[in-house]
Formats: sequence, structure tokens, C-alpha cells
Amino acid sequence: MPYDYEKDGAAIYAQSFAMIRAEADLAAFDAHAEQVVVRMIHAAGMVGLERHVKVSDGFVPAARSALENGAPILCDARMVSEGVTRFRLPAENAVICTLHDPKVPDMAKAAGNTRSAIALELWRPHLEGAVVAIGNAPTALFHLLNMLEDPECPRPAAIIGCPVGFVGAAESKDALWADQPVPSLIVKGRLGGSAITVAAVNAIASRKE
Amino acid sequence: MPYDYEKDGAAIYAQSFAMIRAEADLAAFDAHAEQVVVRMIHAAGMVGLERHVKVSDGFVPAARSALENGAPILCDARMVSEGVTRFRLPAENAVICTLHDPKVPDMAKAAGNTRSAIALELWRPHLEGAVVAIGNAPTALFHLLNMLEDPECPRPAAIIGCPVGFVGAAESKDALWADQPVPSLIVKGRLGGSAITVAAVNAIASRKE
Repeated sequence: MPYDYEKDGAAIYAQSFAMIRAEADLAAFDAHAEQVVVRMIHAAGMVGLERHVKVSDGFVPAARSALENGAPILCDARMVSEGVTRFRLPAENAVICTLHDPKVPDMAKAAGNTRSAIALELWRPHLEGAVVAIGNAPTALFHLLNMLEDPECPRPAAIIGCPVGFVGAAESKDALWADQPVPSLIVKGRLGGSAITVAAVNAIASRKE
Repeated sequence: MPYDYEKDGAAIYAQSFAMIRAEADLAAFDAHAEQVVVRMIHAAGMVGLERHVKVSDGFVPAARSALENGAPILCDARMVSEGVTRFRLPAENAVICTLHDPKVPDMAKAAGNTRSAIALELWRPHLEGAVVAIGNAPTALFHLLNMLEDPECPRPAAIIGCPVGFVGAAESKDALWADQPVPSLIVKGRLGGSAITVAAVNAIASRKE
């Protein structure tokens, strides 16, 4: 006997977002950030994630204007860049991940750093006004903060800093939150990852739920 | 003053896995499954995930032998297929995601189902003996179970069933666990997603941590 289940994608989204708004405590967020956090909770399958999310004032408008003005999205991992829903992007924005550039392995060896971190050196020509989405590697976020200590380094418009894991993830996100070189969104602690990061990008890209 | 942080990828992995083994309760898993669950916890950044993971007897050997014998990996989403670490695969296995096949939108409309579910119809020529990795869409897992109700449908070697979310995710995974058409791994409830799913694939692909 075949399983019967909800097969209407739009209905699944609507029902999911309604459940999240009924269960999650979203009082800490303004209307812009609320929509982003709801989508992050959806991607994680986890009510309670909201207690770990911090969004700086003006982050969503800054990131959204950047996208509307054609800014690229710079991603630390292919799982992030592949997850961005292209038809939600307001200006056919470029989605860039430099991790698999053939120059990266030698650059990483020379620098004594991870490929994920060193790949960000190849972001420099695209970084001015970009939306940064780091959803995997703590070393990438630390390296970005170190790059931005140089006042000559181009400034992105906004940073989504959600690397995941047990070594450096919490520390790199605390560092981003303390520095705030530009408006930022983080998930504090170990939680994070590509799905949550992509959800934030997709929510910023379009108000449509 | 630049941030100082662990820059050695191998050291980061080793330290992360040691932390997970110190903190998580892995007594329910045999040695094969333990290695897979540790990597899933790592990808999720979440000790405690192990309480939601169920692995059927013989799942890891079945999936691993399939890969060693050259079986393809069938993924419901590009975030899953892109996350599979190619150099860990034992037989340069094909990693297949049919979601963006140009036939899918019309097929979905005709069937009154989601693109994620209907895309699995294009798995049929590859399904026999394959490793299935569903890390996004509950509708895909339900559709697979319905396909497998037909005894004529080719059987995969093993199913990783970790769709995430609020509508159908828990239900589809409970259905897989009850049916067990082939050895399976699930994350019960709402949790799941591409990162956890990819971690399971990558752990099965190689014993190397």
C-alpha cells in the first residue's frame, strides 16, 4: 500500500514555517532578521537554534541591498555555493567558491594553512561589497578576519559566519562578533554548517517565503 | 594583531574526533557504525545527535562493499552530491543527482509531486546495488519507499535516509525504518540534512579518519 504524504512543495514550506513560528521564540529579532532565522531553523530542523543566532543591527538590509545591487556571494565550500537557490537571487548574482581552484593546494602548503583558509586569498578581486557566506571551515573565518585587519583589504558588505564544529568554530565566530568589521550574522558555539548558511543567503536574497 | 588558530587540517580532525568520543555516548553502535556516527556528529557540530541515529545490522558493511565494488551513490540534492569527498571513494564511484535534469519539472507537474521526489524516477537505471543518500527531501524518501513496493523495482544495496524538517521528515524516516527494504541508516525526527548525510557517505567510503 503506497505511502500518502504531502506532495505540494509550497504547502510543505507554508506548514513548516507556521510550525516554526508557533514553536520558536523569535522575540529577539526584528522583522527582517526574523524571516532569516525562521529559514535557518527550517534548514536545521531544529527549533531552539534561534537561541544561538546573533544578527547585528542593519545586517539584513546591508546584505539584501548588496545583492540587489549585483554583489557576488563568496562561499567557503561547494556545499554552500551549490545550495544557493539561483532563481531567488535578485540580480543573477555570481556565486563564487574558490576552494577547488587548482592554485589552492600549493598556496596552502606554502602558507602552512588549510585549503579552506587560503582559498579566500582568491576572493580579493571580488570582496569589495560582496556578501560572504562561511558555512564550513573555522579556519576560513579566522583567515578572513586576519585579512580584514589590513585596512587596504577590500570590505565585504556583510558576513554570514556559521562555520561548524569542535575546533575553532565557536572561537572564530566569537572573534567575528567582537570585531564586527562589517554587519554580521553568526550562530554561536559548535552549531552551524552549510545548510544553515545557505538558508540565510536564500532568505536574504528574496522576501518570498 | 592577527588571530592565532590551529591551521593543520589533520590535527583539527584528530582533535575533533577525540572530543566527540570523549563526550558522546556511542555504546549502542558496533565498531563500523561508531565511525560513521562520529563523523555525523562532527558534521552537525552536535554531541547528542547519536541518540537519534539508528543503523541496521549489516548496514555499514553492505554500503561499504557496494562502494568497493563500484556502485554509484544516488543523492537527492546537489548539496549532498557536492559534499561527497571524491578522493575517499574506493572505486572512483559515480555520484549522481538527477534533481536538475531538464525533464524533472514537467515530470513533477504531471505527477503532482515535488521535483525532489520525481527526480528519483531517473535513478532507476542506476538503482540496482547503489548506495542511496537522501539528505534533504522527505518527499524523495517517501517516493523511494513507494517505488520499492514494486518487486520489479531494482534494489539499492543500502539507504541513508536523513531528510530534514518539519513536514514529513520524521514520518518518512519512521516508514523507512519500519519497512527496511534494504539495510538502512536514519536520523529519527526532524534532524537530518545534507551535511549529516554527506558525513555518513564519507565515513562509509573510507575507514581513514
